[in-house]
Formats: sequence, structure tokens, C-alpha cells
Amino acid sequence: MPGPPFSSLVDGLAAAVPFVPPEALERRTGKALRLRLGANESLFGPSPRALEAMQAALGRVACYGDPESTELRAAVASVHGVTAENVVVTSGIDDLLGLAVRAFVDPGVVAVTSLGAYPTFNFHVFGFGGLIERVPYRNDANDLQALSDLARRTNARVVYLANPDNPTGTWHSAVAVTKLVDSLPPRSVLLLDEAYIEYAPPGTAPAVDGDDPRVIRMRTFSKAHGMAGARIGYGIASPATVGAFDKIRHHFGVNRIAQAGALASLGDTEYVARLASLVAEGRSHYEAIGRKLGVATLPSATNFVTFDVGSKPMARAIVAALQDRGVFVRTPGAPPIDRCIRVTVGPASERAEFADVFGEIWAARGSLRLAP
Amino acid sequence: MPGPPFSSLVDGLAAAVPFVPPEALERRTGKALRLRLGANESLFGPSPRALEAMQAALGRVACYGDPESTELRAAVASVHGVTAENVVVTSGIDDLLGLAVRAFVDPGVVAVTSLGAYPTFNFHVFGFGGLIERVPYRNDANDLQALSDLARRTNARVVYLANPDNPTGTWHSAVAVTKLVDSLPPRSVLLLDEAYIEYAPPGTAPAVDGDDPRVIRMRTFSKAHGMAGARIGYGIASPATVGAFDKIRHHFGVNRIAQAGALASLGDTEYVARLASLVAEGRSHYEAIGRKLGVATLPSATNFVTFDVGSKPMARAIVAALQDRGVFVRTPGAPPIDRCIRVTVGPASERAEFADVFGEIWAARGSLRLAP
Repeated sequence: MPGPPFSSLVDGLAAAVPFVPPEALERRTGKALRLRLGANESLFGPSPRALEAMQAALGRVACYGDPESTELRAAVASVHGVTAENVVVTSGIDDLLGLAVRAFVDPGVVAVTSLGAYPTFNFHVFGFGGLIERVPYRNDANDLQALSDLARRTNARVVYLANPDNPTGTWHSAVAVTKLVDSLPPRSVLLLDEAYIEYAPPGTAPAVDGDDPRVIRMRTFSKAHGMAGARIGYGIASPATVGAFDKIRHHFGVNRIAQAGALASLGDTEYVARLASLVAEGRSHYEAIGRKLGVATLPSATNFVTFDVGSKPMARAIVAALQDRGVFVRTPGAPPIDRCIRVTVGPASERAEFADVFGEIWAARGSLRLAP
Repeated sequence: MPGPPFSSLVDGLAAAVPFVPPEALERRTGKALRLRLGANESLFGPSPRALEAMQAALGRVACYGDPESTELRAAVASVHGVTAENVVVTSGIDDLLGLAVRAFVDPGVVAVTSLGAYPTFNFHVFGFGGLIERVPYRNDANDLQALSDLARRTNARVVYLANPDNPTGTWHSAVAVTKLVDSLPPRSVLLLDEAYIEYAPPGTAPAVDGDDPRVIRMRTFSKAHGMAGARIGYGIASPATVGAFDKIRHHFGVNRIAQAGALASLGDTEYVARLASLVAEGRSHYEAIGRKLGVATLPSATNFVTFDVGSKPMARAIVAALQDRGVFVRTPGAPPIDRCIRVTVGPASERAEFADVFGEIWAARGSLRLAP
């Protein structure tokens, strides 16, 4: 019997997954993880109001959610000073990245990103037949000038920027991002991934302009809102772009419990502000741990801190040693930041536990077996 | 400023949504619906075990779900006598249809379906640049011979069949479906949507064969499992097809609360069996209502009954009159079944309420204003 008759695009794709999940690590090692610090989940949990709303929403789980997410879009619009026609609700930023790539990237079209940036963007570009062009990080941050230069040189259709950045944690000012937008070639779009924006200092997010077709803002309830498992996020874009997404999106893709939780969490600004301050405290703690051990840390405006352990083999060995001890962290995928390990900021007790394990491993680092 | 630089495919798509949701009706009329009988949700609710599992899962909503849905896939595999490599978990059958179309349909490729069948399939085919060829229903059921003939004549890559069917409720035997599969042209795939299979009599579902690349089985937790709002379903296909889906699917698209609920519900076979028997009772009730009013009903193996009110203008007028009275039902979108209204089977009290309202409208049907 012949094989399945795949489309030429899918047939030509290499097998690839964006991330190996911690569950797969647990299955591989047969050991449960005691500290889950590799996915930048909010280990402080969601807002109690969000949790309450989700509990209540379970009572109506037999009914489909509103495919237009009308209430949530109105609330998002009000928060950002735009209209509901500027807002699309998706099952997280991953879903939105897929939509945006599908909406803009014809096969053979160029997309620009940083080398080692969020791999799911690349996954979608390849998945729709686009070409990826990459710019190395510069001083462990996105090199905005080089991104702009490459976009103009390659006539890129989309440019991806996470600000604050993942996996470095570094960030640029709103002014610098706006300058990037203004410098892009005509007929290109910036996908501005602001998953971590709630952790960033004032002046990081450019003003939202619902009429600017050049920018798609991407927000999520997975990070500061503590609802990664619910899969919900949103995009802010021009009405024309939101209309294009409506032509292709999975209209019944968002869970109604997630919709209810997101709406409640969006209204609980106090919780998110308190959380951001707890995370800032945790970042300082991690920086202190780094100083004590003599391990440099990258500046971070996120809920993780990236520790510079000096080399890729050392980073990999430490990730493996941590994993052996039940601690899940990740190392960035490309140079020069693959010399680092990226560690989620959790509550104080989890940070202390991490400090102990990491401290012991670091002290004995001379005995780690380094792959070449 | 020029408009956004959409891909040629998306630029060429007409604006379209698969369904106008009941929430949009409520906003349009400014009135809350008292009976929601138009989306074939399980008005009996989910299994108490599923609800309990979902409540418990809320405690971990801050963490991403397992993108490989390992536990659930193992359970599904065990239920169907296949391996986990035969199973993909998606955010409902809609998501799976999108994946399947993307995996098989190159632009210009033909997909075959019945005229008036599930519109979301067509939405995805258009969305990926495919061409739709349609076969009219015959005796208010899918015309398997004509589907097969058309597939061979057009060298179709995919054929869509819902069995039991939506929106008619009718069904074919496993033997007839197997014969259809065997008659399809080489290098074509049957997307066998079995959303309503739990309500169907024995002998409706063909045996599952995990090695057959010609069929993709599609199942959901939205219907008999009562979890439409959770957005979760699964496909069973050859490992090669599941591998192709892995290259393109939204790996973090499924809510972890939904995963937990689905796993528990899959294990509660007693609940699903009891529910199917309650729904069968409800179908008989609807048939009795139809007989009393002199309105024919189509045979149904689903959780809805399709009432034949005689003509498309009458069906539309009755849907509108029901809506005026706060009752949401739908009428199929194409002849000859657009002479019908499709009504979800709910608990006895809701059926009685429907019977009253429908009875009054039917008695006064002479005064309804019929659009031409």
C-alpha cells in the first residue's frame, strides 16, 4: 500500500518539534522533576480571581465557548485603548505566530529573526514554506540595527522580535523598537512578541497604535497571568490584519474556561503588579546567587534569569547535572548564548532549593564530563 | 500607508466564518437564549469523574500541558487497540480537520464532500487553496456511491464523511463505509468524522486499523463526553500521518484541564453509555413530538433530530420564530435538507419546553412571513 499522499510542502518538511517538554524528560529518565524551572511558567500561580472564574466556568464546560471571544476582546481593547476589531484571541502566542506566518508568508518569502530566538516562530515559517534569515545576538541582546539591515537586504515580509527577549531576558526601550519599525522595508510586518512585558520596566512597550498595519503585538496569559496550561493569548493588529486572521483561524480553538480566567485576570491588575514585584525580587535573588558563585547573570526584564556558565559544553553539562537532581532548566539553542543556562524565577523556597543544587554542581564543576 | 502584505493565498480568500455562534445571536437581538439547541452540545453535561479531574487540574493551570498528550494518547490507543503512534490529540475535530487539509491538500487539489455537510471542512479546504467538489445528499443521507464516483472522477486527495452525519443525523453501516474506502482512488484519504459515534448503533464504526494510511478517524470530547467548551478531540491515523501532523501542529494547543478531563471521561464508559441511552430516549421523544404535530423527522444516530418542516422558507421562518422566543436551533445550509430544522436532544424538561414553543409556532405557521 503506498504511503499517505501528503502535500508537497508537508512532505518536504523535516520532522521537528519546537521543544522537548519536561514530561518527556521525566519519561526518559523515569524520575519526576522536583523543580520545573525550564519553561518560564509562573510558579506563583494565577490570580485567585482568575482561578475562581475558571472554577465557575467549569459548570458550563459542556457548551462551546464564544468563538468571537467578544467579552474578552472588549476588555483587551479597553485596556489598550483600541477597538475590539483590533483584537484577536488565540490559544496562546504560538497559535498567533502560526496565524501571522500563514497570513503573511508565501512559500519562498523571507522571515527575519535573531539566531537562537524563540524556535516556534521558525517552526511556523518552515511549516508554511518560508525562508528564515537570522541575525546573531549582540551583547546578548537582539541587534535591532542588524535585524533592520537584514530585513531591508532580504526584503523580508515579517520580522520577529521578542521584547523583553527570550531566552536572554534582555530588552530594548520602546523608543528603540519604534525606530526599528520605522526602519523596516515597505510591506513588511513586525511580529512583536511581548510575552514577558508585564515584568519589564516602564518605557519598554511602545504605545499601541491600532491603525498601524506594520506591527502585530502579541500578548499572553501564560506568563505573568499564570495560566500557561489554559492556552490563551491575544494579538493587537490593524483591523485588516485581524480580518485576515478571521479568514483562517481555528474559530473554536480557545477553551471557554481559559476565556473566563483571562477575563478575570485582565481585571486583576493588582495581582499582576504584585506578581511582577515578587518576580523582580526573585531576579535580584538569582543575581545574588550568581555573584556568590562567581557566575555572571544577564540583565533580565522577564521571569527568568540567564546565567553565563562560560561555554556551551559547560552549559549542557550543568543542565544535565541539574536534571539528574530533578531540576529542569534549559540552555539556549545557539551561540553565543548557548554558553548560558536559563532559569525561571519561582517563589523564595524554590529559589533556595535551586541555589543549593546549582551551588553544589558549580562547586564540583571540575568533575563534570563535558561533551566536545 | 499601504495595507498589510498578506500572502497571496490569504489575500484571495473571501471573508467567511464557519458558524454564527449563539452568543452573536444574543448580541444581535439583545435577548438571552433560554434553550440552546443549535450546537449539539451535550446538555446532560460531562461525566462527574471528568468534572472532578478538571477541577483538580485547575490547581496546575500555571504549567503548560504535556504537548505530547502522552497519557491521553496511551489511553486512546488502548481503547482502540492501536499504538500511541497512531494517535494525535487536537483542540477538537475542527483543529484536526485543519491539520488534515494542510497535510494533504496542495493549492488546486480537489477535496470531496456532501453538499450541506460540515462547513468547517470547506473553510479549511478554501483556507489552504484547495478546491471543493460536492455531492448532494440522497434520501437525506450521504450518497456514498456518488462520493466515490466523484472522488475518482476528480482524482480527489481527500474525501470528507461524517458518520453519523451532521446535519441530517442519518448514518451508514461500517460495511458501507469500508466499501467506500476500498472504492476510493489511489492516493486519496478518507477523513471519517465520527463526532457522534457514541450515539450510533453497533455496526456503525468500521474496525480501527492503525496501519491503513487511507483513513483518518476523528473523535471528539465535545459531544457524548459533554466537554465542548474544553476543546479537545483526537485523530487515529497511520504513524506516517501522525508524524506529518507533528511537523505542523500547534504543539501547545491543548488546554491541560481539557487533557485531564478527557482522560477521566474516556475511562468513564458507564457514563457515556448511560448518556447515549438518555439521548436515544430523547430522540424517541422528539419523534413523538413530530408525529403529534404532523412533522416528519429524519432517522438519527446522533444527539439531535432533524425535523422536516417542508421548505427552506418555512425552515428559516421557524428558526427565526424560535429565536424570537429564545430558542436557538439551526437549519442546514443547502438543499434538499435546508427544508429542515436541526434540534439538539436535551434533558426531558428542555425537550418539553421546546415542544411547547415549537408546537405553538407550528400551529400558527400559516401566519409566519416566509422569505422568497
